[in-house]
Amino acid sequence: MEKIFEQALLYDFYGDLLTEHQKQVYEAAVFNDMSLGEIAAEQGISRQGVHDLIKRCDKILSEYEEKLHLAERFATAKKKISQIDSLTRLEEKTATDPEASADLVKRLGEIRSLTKELLDTL
Amino acid sequence: MEKIFEQALLYDFYGDLLTEHQKQVYEAAVFNDMSLGEIAAEQGISRQGVHDLIKRCDKILSEYEEKLHLAERFATAKKKISQIDSLTRLEEKTATDPEASADLVKRLGEIRSLTKELLDTL
Repeated sequence: MEKIFEQALLYDFYGDLLTEHQKQVYEAAVFNDMSLGEIAAEQGISRQGVHDLIKRCDKILSEYEEKLHLAERFATAKKKISQIDSLTRLEEKTATDPEASADLVKRLGEIRSLTKELLDTL
Repeated sequence: MEKIFEQALLYDFYGDLLTEHQKQVYEAAVFNDMSLGEIAAEQGISRQGVHDLIKRCDKILSEYEEKLHLAERFATAKKKISQIDSLTRLEEKTATDPEASADLVKRLGEIRSLTKELLDTL
């Protein structure tokens, strides 16, 4: 499962650098969960050919990520943004209580720190 | 000026896909503002060679951006985050006034909407 997730993530970033043929085969394997045999029949190539092509695509996508680290940068940014989002979710009771002002101010300060970190990340 | 800015931006994203030699020449031209003659002397190649190499790098970097749009995605994200940041900057007077609570709650709601948009962008 984890490998599929990583493959899908890297494909989302760098997939458009693959050829149309590579894309078709890779999408069939990673997104449509087709077997090597099924893909081989559909593409008119051998099972070994499909296997090698997928390996090759994995390598290409990994090499782009090793050089550019863009998927990693985005993942870090998303984590920070989730934290921001959590901070903004107030309980209904808190939101309507005027004495909660001090807490809101504190939260906003924390949001500000997080957005700074976020900008350094991007 | 705008061209230099775009070159620097794309180099920041995709520069590591260039060769060491391309990087040296491109950085000298774009970041160190060296003339073609200066770079030519330093690298031991012709002025025309330097010119062609820079053009080639521009083309390579632009083609990656045309395919991947990652610089564009990051730029959009940064704009959103700046808006979040603006929303969190309260005046000292507002921050210490308990009656400002309603305004703070409203701001936090706006922040939440922005972070949602942000997550869709990334």
